[in-house]
Amino acid sequence: MQSIEFYRSEFISYLEKRVETQEPRNLYEPITYILNLEGKRLRPVLVLMAAEIFEVDYKKALDAALSVEVFHNFSLVHDDIMDRAPLRRGKPSVHEKWNINTGILSGDAMLIVAYQLFENYENPMFRDLAKLFSKTALEVCEGQQYDMDFEERDDVTIPEYLKMIEYKTAVLVAATLKMGAIVAKAPKDAQDAVYDFGLNLGIAFQIKDDFLDVFGDSETFGKQVGGDIIENKKTFLYLKALELAKPEQKKELLDLYSIRPEDPTAKINSIKEIFIDSGTAKITETAIEGYTQRAFKSLERLDVPTDKKASLQQFGENLMRRQV
Amino acid sequence: MQSIEFYRSEFISYLEKRVETQEPRNLYEPITYILNLEGKRLRPVLVLMAAEIFEVDYKKALDAALSVEVFHNFSLVHDDIMDRAPLRRGKPSVHEKWNINTGILSGDAMLIVAYQLFENYENPMFRDLAKLFSKTALEVCEGQQYDMDFEERDDVTIPEYLKMIEYKTAVLVAATLKMGAIVAKAPKDAQDAVYDFGLNLGIAFQIKDDFLDVFGDSETFGKQVGGDIIENKKTFLYLKALELAKPEQKKELLDLYSIRPEDPTAKINSIKEIFIDSGTAKITETAIEGYTQRAFKSLERLDVPTDKKASLQQFGENLMRRQV
Repeated sequence: MQSIEFYRSEFISYLEKRVETQEPRNLYEPITYILNLEGKRLRPVLVLMAAEIFEVDYKKALDAALSVEVFHNFSLVHDDIMDRAPLRRGKPSVHEKWNINTGILSGDAMLIVAYQLFENYENPMFRDLAKLFSKTALEVCEGQQYDMDFEERDDVTIPEYLKMIEYKTAVLVAATLKMGAIVAKAPKDAQDAVYDFGLNLGIAFQIKDDFLDVFGDSETFGKQVGGDIIENKKTFLYLKALELAKPEQKKELLDLYSIRPEDPTAKINSIKEIFIDSGTAKITETAIEGYTQRAFKSLERLDVPTDKKASLQQFGENLMRRQV
Repeated sequence: MQSIEFYRSEFISYLEKRVETQEPRNLYEPITYILNLEGKRLRPVLVLMAAEIFEVDYKKALDAALSVEVFHNFSLVHDDIMDRAPLRRGKPSVHEKWNINTGILSGDAMLIVAYQLFENYENPMFRDLAKLFSKTALEVCEGQQYDMDFEERDDVTIPEYLKMIEYKTAVLVAATLKMGAIVAKAPKDAQDAVYDFGLNLGIAFQIKDDFLDVFGDSETFGKQVGGDIIENKKTFLYLKALELAKPEQKKELLDLYSIRPEDPTAKINSIKEIFIDSGTAKITETAIEGYTQRAFKSLERLDVPTDKKASLQQFGENLMRRQV
């Protein structure tokens, strides 16, 4: 097994070679633009790693990895329109740099291109990849819809929230690993094991994201600490606190989540306190640990050499140890 | 072979049985809505007809037909957002009835669902259908992009215009017939012959659409006669007239295409006159006839019983004889 950095740089070279602007330029230029914005490339790296874990040259998985990255960026382009986000990775989002119509149409083309990349695989691999891809892509759409629905609702439950982050984020992480396994012709139960690993790790990752948004180090956290609180976003912590907090704390939390003060410092600090005092912070950390352990447990079902399994475990540990 | 009306009603029954609103409702309700708006269902009918021409029960082609209809409606939902069209088939368009975000996301889900419907076919049919579908869908996006680009350009040529309508409209008609042929396991050259038939018929149909917009009977034409002229739309007639008209006519045409008078009657009449006097109307009719004949010529390469071939010819003749 090679290092994550190796797979990332191999992937980026491949992307740069394969993605070029064709005619009509106004359709393809935004695609080249978004795909070349700097990113962690976690998803394609996972596809390549999964292929090598099952003893197949990562090069065979490059098209599947590119497909996943194109799909992920398609969802970013359309989500940024829906969320009115002017920036993506510190650069203007596609609809901001061009316009909404370009964002819609170039996004559509990316979704189709993602499917086309599977044509580089023969049957039955092509079918398995396309089928997994469709299921996953539809779940991602459903997750995005739940996320938008939750903004309008006051009765979101924790199980509903978990389903939302599973669909919106975790299924794609899970699918990347399974795609690598499919390309490597791994047996069905091994495919399922890496899928479950990715799914639980993805859920843990997303809850950790909620956690770091409140308790992250402002020096190292990439985004503004307290951003979710400022936006009154219904996160795992918020929903859990509503369950756990005493009546007066709950009332305070609801009140604070109904305002948008110009200087949010006091609001953030009060809510942080509620999260700690009510035991929400502690329980959230336990939940993150629980999903992480479930992920590692899935690896036990995996019949591959110890060093290969260790590199997946290592990847998971690095991901969950992050403070940013 | 059954009548077009038979295939249409069989298709509608199937659609009503298969398309139901799942959770999350806000994602799937708009899909049910748009798919149930009254329409001619030309594309799915062609899939079913093509299957029967190659001696396979149309029932086997129902999922491919539904896929094509779902894709077509996906493109309508997204195009209506881009064109700011408040109405579709006389009813509120999706982004008008709900909102733009819903239009974007439900459209995305439809594109994925269209792919998923092919999963009802085994390999290698699944691969052939998905591959043809991806190629076609990407061309449709490119056609839409060219169409939007042309609005901003003053130097669009007739060959460019023909490529635009080929991509935006004709390739999907061609693909429907080829899909029916794929489901029927027709030989490769037969697949190509029906594809060419659909492609040329689609181009003829689209030029005829431009023609009827100016010269159609206001009593029977579904849309407002002169609508393209009011919108200063660069149609086949407009571009051809710029080629054919004498300098003073050309100047008048350009002047008229730079204004949007409140009462467009005089503008429409003057342009109509230019189209007739310059020989544009005549040449446009010749072009329509030329593409129609090329379509029928493709049928000669087709080795199927005469009555089956006749029903395709009949379909083409009916389509081109329309005055609406």
